[in-house]
Amino acid sequence: MNAEIIAVGTELLLGDILNTNAQYLARQLAALGFTVHFQCVVGDNPQRLAQVAHTARERSEVVLYSGGLGPTADDLTKETVAAEYGDPLRFDEAEYKKIERFFRDCHRPMSENNRKQAMVPANGRTLANENGTAPGAMFVQNGRYAFLMPGPPKELIPMFEKEVRPLLQTMQQCVLHSRMLRVYGIGESQLEGMVAELLEGENPTAALYAKTAEVVVRITARAADEQAAQAMCGKLADRFYAILGDHIYAEGEQGMEYTVVRTFIDAGMTLATAESCTGGLVSERITSVPGSSEMFECGVCSYSNNIKQLLLEVDSGTLRQKGAVSPEVALQMADGVRRRAGATVGVGITGIAGPGGGTEEKPVGLVYIAAAMGDTVWVHRMLMAHRTRDVVRLAASQKALDMARRLALGLPMHGCTAHRLRG
Amino acid sequence: MNAEIIAVGTELLLGDILNTNAQYLARQLAALGFTVHFQCVVGDNPQRLAQVAHTARERSEVVLYSGGLGPTADDLTKETVAAEYGDPLRFDEAEYKKIERFFRDCHRPMSENNRKQAMVPANGRTLANENGTAPGAMFVQNGRYAFLMPGPPKELIPMFEKEVRPLLQTMQQCVLHSRMLRVYGIGESQLEGMVAELLEGENPTAALYAKTAEVVVRITARAADEQAAQAMCGKLADRFYAILGDHIYAEGEQGMEYTVVRTFIDAGMTLATAESCTGGLVSERITSVPGSSEMFECGVCSYSNNIKQLLLEVDSGTLRQKGAVSPEVALQMADGVRRRAGATVGVGITGIAGPGGGTEEKPVGLVYIAAAMGDTVWVHRMLMAHRTRDVVRLAASQKALDMARRLALGLPMHGCTAHRLRG
Repeated sequence: MNAEIIAVGTELLLGDILNTNAQYLARQLAALGFTVHFQCVVGDNPQRLAQVAHTARERSEVVLYSGGLGPTADDLTKETVAAEYGDPLRFDEAEYKKIERFFRDCHRPMSENNRKQAMVPANGRTLANENGTAPGAMFVQNGRYAFLMPGPPKELIPMFEKEVRPLLQTMQQCVLHSRMLRVYGIGESQLEGMVAELLEGENPTAALYAKTAEVVVRITARAADEQAAQAMCGKLADRFYAILGDHIYAEGEQGMEYTVVRTFIDAGMTLATAESCTGGLVSERITSVPGSSEMFECGVCSYSNNIKQLLLEVDSGTLRQKGAVSPEVALQMADGVRRRAGATVGVGITGIAGPGGGTEEKPVGLVYIAAAMGDTVWVHRMLMAHRTRDVVRLAASQKALDMARRLALGLPMHGCTAHRLRG
Repeated sequence: MNAEIIAVGTELLLGDILNTNAQYLARQLAALGFTVHFQCVVGDNPQRLAQVAHTARERSEVVLYSGGLGPTADDLTKETVAAEYGDPLRFDEAEYKKIERFFRDCHRPMSENNRKQAMVPANGRTLANENGTAPGAMFVQNGRYAFLMPGPPKELIPMFEKEVRPLLQTMQQCVLHSRMLRVYGIGESQLEGMVAELLEGENPTAALYAKTAEVVVRITARAADEQAAQAMCGKLADRFYAILGDHIYAEGEQGMEYTVVRTFIDAGMTLATAESCTGGLVSERITSVPGSSEMFECGVCSYSNNIKQLLLEVDSGTLRQKGAVSPEVALQMADGVRRRAGATVGVGITGIAGPGGGTEEKPVGLVYIAAAMGDTVWVHRMLMAHRTRDVVRLAASQKALDMARRLALGLPMHGCTAHRLRG
C-alpha cells in the first residue's frame, strides 16, 4: 500500500521547528512495508489544507497527519480532513468529560474552544491521547484512510505506537519486531565488509548507522505475529553475534556508559577516573546514568601538572622526562586515582584534543588511555588526525569506557599493552 | 512574494535522514520576507517530481529545490524542473572542465554520467558549488523562479548564502542582518512579560527561543543595505540591554562556558570545580572550549563522602550533621577545591539529580551551588521539581557557570547568600 505524510503548522513553514515527526513516521511506514511517495507541510489555513488533503486522498491510500489538533481557532485539521473524507463528526459526551477532567487535574481553566476537541469521527474512530488534551482521529471512506495525530512528538509517538501502528499492521496483515545492536571497536567501513552478506536481506532487514565512536546495527523483521517476527530477528542477530562477538557491547537505545554502570554494579566493582584532555567527560557520562553512585567513587579532572602530582601522585620526574601526554603518565593517573579512591578499577586519560597544543612528535588527536585493575595497567594509544576537539574527546571517552567494561567482564583488551605494577 | 520548498530524495521518504534543509531554507525565506505556504518531499521519480514541480510553479512565485543534482541516473531534478520552466538546457564546456578538474584533484575516476552535470540553464543561470561537483541552477519563466541546490547541507548552505540569497534579496530589494542575545537567569514567561512590547515589531523582528536553562533572543532587520540593517538591529538590541542588563551574558552561537573561559582569561583568573550531582558536567563544559587550559586548574567529581573529605577537605562533622546535600557542604567543596588547586575561584555543587535518592526534606531536584573567591563564598539554593536528571544537571551547571562569570566580572550575585570565611 502507499502512504503519505502531511504536517500541519505555521511554525514548520517559518522554520521555527524541525519536522522530526515526518522522519519518525516515514521510518515507521517503511518498516511496516508502506511505500511513501510524498510528504507535505502546510499551514493552519483551511483552503490550502483542504487542497493538500484532497490531493493526498486522491493519490495515497493512507495519509498520516500531524499537528493542528489543538483547541485554538486556527487548529482546523480535524474539520477540514473530516470534510474531505465525508465524515460529519459528532459531539461525544465521554470525550468531553475526559477533557474536563484533564483541565481540572492540572488546575487550568477550560475554555469554550476546548469543547471543539470533543467532536469525534462519526464513521471513523477516535485515537486516544495519553499525553495531552487533543484526541486523534481516524477517517475512512472507500478504502482510503486518514490518521490525525497531534504535533508534539511526546504526544504523537505514543499515539502512533499504541493506536495507529496496530491498525496499519492489520491493513498490512503483519507485525514488526526490531533489535538494535550497539557495536564498538570496529570502524563502519570495516564492519560493512565483515557483515556485507547480512545487510542484503529484505525481511528481516539489517542496516548500519554510524555514530561518533560506535556503529548501531538495526535489525527489523515483518511477520504474521510477534513471535515469528522475534524469531526472525533472533536468527539474524545470532549471525551478527557470531561475527562481531564481544564488540557488540549492548542492545537498545542506551550508550556505553549504561553498560559500564550495570556491569560494575553486577560485579560489585567500583570505578574512579582521572581525566586530562577529556576534562570530565567520562565522569559526566558515567554519572548521567541513574544509580551510578553505587559504582562510581570519584573523578579527577587534572589540567595542570601540579594537580596531577598533588591529587593523583603522578611522579614529577615522569612528567618532566616523558611529558604530560605519555603512556607513563596515563598509567600513573589510572593507578593513582584508583589508589586514592580505593576503587577496583582506575581509568586515566591524557592527550591533545586540539585545536592548539600539538607538535610534530605529539600531534593534535594523540591520546593515551589507561585502565588499572589488580596488579596490571593496560594502556592504549589512540591517534585521531584531522578530527575536531569534540570528536577526539568523545572517542577517547568511549575507548576508556570500553576498557573499563572489558576489565569488569574479563574480556580481551584489544590494542592495549599490559604493564605490571611493582608490588 | 510567496515561496515554496521542495526536497527531492528517497532517503527522506524512507526516514533515513532528517529534512534539516527544509528548516534552514524556511528560516532564511522568512527572514527575507517571503511567505512560505507549502513544503514538499518527493522521491527521485520523474513523473511524481514533474507533478510536484508543476503544482509548485502554479501556486508559488519562488520555488527552492534541494537534492537530486548528483551524477547518478536517478538524479533527475534538473532535467525535470527545466522542462517545467520551459528551459532547453545547454552543454557548457567551462562547467565540464571544472568537473574534470575536480575529479583529477581528488584522484577519483570520472564517469560518463558526470557529463550530465555540465548541462546548464539556457535561460536561467548556473549556481556555483564550492563544496561538491554538482552545480546548482536557477530557472526563470514569466516572473516565476526555481532555484536548484544540492542535498548535502555542507553544499547547500554555502550555495544558498553566496548565490541564492543575494538574488532573493534583489527580488525583495533588501539585505538582512541578525543578532542573537543569550539570556540567563530569567525564565521564558517572565522574560516574555518584560519585553512583550519589543516582540511586536515587523521590521526589525525579535523572537524568543527557550532552551534548557537559557533563552535566546533573535533580532533580525531587513533594510536596503547592510549598514542600515545593522543600525536597526543595534537600536532594538539596545532596548533589550536596557531591560535585561547583565542577564544577557553573550551574543552569538556559543554557550555560557565560552563566556566563562574568555572572561577568566581576560581577568587573569583561574577556576577549579568540585562536583557531586553534576558529575563533571561543569568541568566537561569548560574544557570543551579550546584554550580553556589557560584558566582551568582542575575539577574533582566527588560522589562519596570519603572523597569529599580526602580530596576536598570537607569536614566530617559537617557531612554527618548537615548531610552531603547541604549549603554547608557546597560551601566547603568550593572553598576546598579552590585551596587545593590554588585557583582564584572555586565552584562546588551538591544535590539530588534523581530519579532516586530524594526524601521529603531533600527532594529530587534540590541542588546547592557555591562559588568561592577572596574571603567570601556565595551559595545558591535551586529546587527543580518534576525535572529529569539531565535537566537538573544542566540547569545546575549553567547556574554554577553564571556564578563564576559574575564573580569574575564583579556583578551582583542574584539569589545567593554570602558567607564570610574565617580568616
